[in-house]
Amino acid sequence: MKRSAWVAVVLFAGVAGLVWQRTLPLGRTTISLLVTGGTVVTMDAAGSVVPDGAVAIDGTTIVAVGTAADLDARYQGRERVDARGQVIMPGLINTHTHAPMVLFRGLADDLALMDWLNQYIFPAEKATVSPEFVRVGTRLAVLEMIESGTTTYADMYYFEEEIAAATKAAGVRGVLGQTIIRFPVADAATPEEGLTRTEAFLARWANDPLIVPAVAPHAPYTLTPETLKAARTLADKYRAPLLIHLAETRDEVGIIAGQFKMSPAMFLDSLGLWGGRSLAAHAVWVDEADMKMLAARSVGLSHNPESNMKLASGTAPVTGWLSAGIPSGLGTDGAASNNDLDMFDAMRAAALLHKHATGDPRAMPAKQALELATRRGAAALGLGDRIGSLETGKLADIITVSMSSARQTPMFDPLSHLVYVTRGTDVRNTIVHGRVLMRQGRVISLNRSAVLQEAAAMADKVRAAVSRKEGQ
Amino acid sequence: MKRSAWVAVVLFAGVAGLVWQRTLPLGRTTISLLVTGGTVVTMDAAGSVVPDGAVAIDGTTIVAVGTAADLDARYQGRERVDARGQVIMPGLINTHTHAPMVLFRGLADDLALMDWLNQYIFPAEKATVSPEFVRVGTRLAVLEMIESGTTTYADMYYFEEEIAAATKAAGVRGVLGQTIIRFPVADAATPEEGLTRTEAFLARWANDPLIVPAVAPHAPYTLTPETLKAARTLADKYRAPLLIHLAETRDEVGIIAGQFKMSPAMFLDSLGLWGGRSLAAHAVWVDEADMKMLAARSVGLSHNPESNMKLASGTAPVTGWLSAGIPSGLGTDGAASNNDLDMFDAMRAAALLHKHATGDPRAMPAKQALELATRRGAAALGLGDRIGSLETGKLADIITVSMSSARQTPMFDPLSHLVYVTRGTDVRNTIVHGRVLMRQGRVISLNRSAVLQEAAAMADKVRAAVSRKEGQ
Repeated sequence: MKRSAWVAVVLFAGVAGLVWQRTLPLGRTTISLLVTGGTVVTMDAAGSVVPDGAVAIDGTTIVAVGTAADLDARYQGRERVDARGQVIMPGLINTHTHAPMVLFRGLADDLALMDWLNQYIFPAEKATVSPEFVRVGTRLAVLEMIESGTTTYADMYYFEEEIAAATKAAGVRGVLGQTIIRFPVADAATPEEGLTRTEAFLARWANDPLIVPAVAPHAPYTLTPETLKAARTLADKYRAPLLIHLAETRDEVGIIAGQFKMSPAMFLDSLGLWGGRSLAAHAVWVDEADMKMLAARSVGLSHNPESNMKLASGTAPVTGWLSAGIPSGLGTDGAASNNDLDMFDAMRAAALLHKHATGDPRAMPAKQALELATRRGAAALGLGDRIGSLETGKLADIITVSMSSARQTPMFDPLSHLVYVTRGTDVRNTIVHGRVLMRQGRVISLNRSAVLQEAAAMADKVRAAVSRKEGQ
Repeated sequence: MKRSAWVAVVLFAGVAGLVWQRTLPLGRTTISLLVTGGTVVTMDAAGSVVPDGAVAIDGTTIVAVGTAADLDARYQGRERVDARGQVIMPGLINTHTHAPMVLFRGLADDLALMDWLNQYIFPAEKATVSPEFVRVGTRLAVLEMIESGTTTYADMYYFEEEIAAATKAAGVRGVLGQTIIRFPVADAATPEEGLTRTEAFLARWANDPLIVPAVAPHAPYTLTPETLKAARTLADKYRAPLLIHLAETRDEVGIIAGQFKMSPAMFLDSLGLWGGRSLAAHAVWVDEADMKMLAARSVGLSHNPESNMKLASGTAPVTGWLSAGIPSGLGTDGAASNNDLDMFDAMRAAALLHKHATGDPRAMPAKQALELATRRGAAALGLGDRIGSLETGKLADIITVSMSSARQTPMFDPLSHLVYVTRGTDVRNTIVHGRVLMRQGRVISLNRSAVLQEAAAMADKVRAAVSRKEGQ
């Protein structure tokens, strides 16, 4: 044979070998987990949706997103999640809550804010908040999150080291902020003590794969300018995010204006608080100038539509946040003012509220509500490069959502269904950091009945605390 | 023995015999159904709640409500529903929907009203609405209602005789209105034809135990004064309720004011439309004078918070309706503008919306939202003496609702949980007219998979109709 003929034979053999490796099981690449058979709603920048799709995961990371046929041919998962008839999508991101407050849910509703706080929440917190309370409450909260498809949450509470430990043990991702406040609270008698606690917390949880420790000065009206500045300095020292409540009520605007002749957002800017990664919750009462400044400082904002409606706080101008280019996410707020942690409810409430508020049924379409709960929420938390969409190279935070109920029949558009007719109870599988935390509706990473029993026992203490106060 | 001693012996024996009969099974009264072991939220006028309670049903009627211990001692149910860990409550009453429109849910969202109607709903209706479509859609809708705890619904659509037949076959209670409208529609070329159809429908379904046939002139702006008057005359002739849309949008107010120099409510009053039992849906744009008049005429109003928000129709002044003494209920509206039939969602949306709208977190407390969905809704439909609460002598329309999810833990107050953290998926048993339609989550009165398959097949026709229109 001529030399060129030999070359042709070698080339043919090589190509045939490649094809062989691609198509036969033996040639498939072994990976840790293959989620397959559902409609993949990637929430990537292009809004790609893959019918009959799959996601390949190796270790903690997404290695491929594509059709089920293609990925089944290329990958052999050591573990496999069957998502036929379901949607496969990024885990939901709750950008603002107070996890242990699930133990106060429904304790008192339908009251004026000050009556609610003074007659119920403050006495209950004073009598019950302890490391044990926080641990029990967090376990209940993360159980609810895993069951309803939340894979990352941002938190502000006390004894945050207990929250971090319980969250990590359950396998959930958290941006967890130790609270600093002017008043004596369960875990600190003074704001100075709060700062000291916070520094220890930041040092302890630095570089954890699941937990991002954060500094959480409570709000502009509950801290002195000096403590607010100290909180920013501490956040800078540890390159940690700063979480804060901002402009939740009209009263807050009046208080800050009275003292400092500025809006809450501008007051905090004057202290340099927005000088590093920051996430502010609520921002109901922000004007055009505030929004322009917040966008320029890349401050993330968290919208909490159910809490804002239930407490009659007002309408956060979220369509304005988005036009201004502010990194914006969605949150449930604590369960005491919601009363659950279901991010599907939050999406639906946001979609309805902003149509109502703007008088325009085109406002906050389903896709935008989904973006707030996924890729935009990730960006608001400063995690946009790691989570919030199903794309090769991102961390494997994934949920699958059943679409087969009567309420979801027929399905013309998966995005519409996810926002308008789906709820947390439809979630079937929850995966965080490549680990399956719930499989086909059964939570694996927590002992469900133990968590519910502990919570019921702790609720008795809450009941006793409130009835003591009522008996006074 | 002395005579007095004999008397004592006889008395003792008599009393012992009575005690014997009360405590031994043989002495218990046999009834058809005992629902037992849950927290009974009666929704009676006093708001009675019975922890560890039970409801005794014989035939179609409630014969006793009390503690489980007492009713277990007195009654032997041929059938028994175990509701331990659950709430036992009246079935929910949806006072406004268009059942077959579940087949259009999520077909098109987030559009301006006229684009939505002209590009999607009207072409889809024109191409698909037929007796078969209505039958398939109604079966899907009542499946969803049974699964989510709705036991009575008020409807306005076409081919209402198909809706009545499918509803009765599934065992659900309905106040079902045959639509009359100015334009040619699927079941009538003219309003005269619509009136003729309606009369046949009223005659056919008179005195049915489950179905109340009704006259449904579409709205003040889609009918002439003559047809509206004819609808009232027909309703009077058959002593049937009249269902109508009223003052849903600001545009409607402008149209009626332009033609008749009156508000929609006053315009209809001037025609004598409120001269008999009437239920009007939406009533977003009613003023003080309208409300005073509607209260004087005992017109029932149906509030549809999710539809009003999604279509940006405005805020119905429901706290005003209630202050004026108007019989008021809650509805989902059709699934094309909601997008589901879950009355738990409707309660929650109402509670949140009216706090938000009034700026007062005390507005629309959980108990009031529950009343709208039960006893008040029954009264708005003119059925207040028969359904809407669990009381001896009322018809046995009862649901049981699970309270054991993480999201519902802990429980301090069942009323708060029913409104703020419960959804249709928590319903376990649904009973209408004494018949168990769903037992421990399994629907008995419909073949679930057949209903879902029929609906999926019909959805293909809807898809084809819309894509033809889009291709024009």
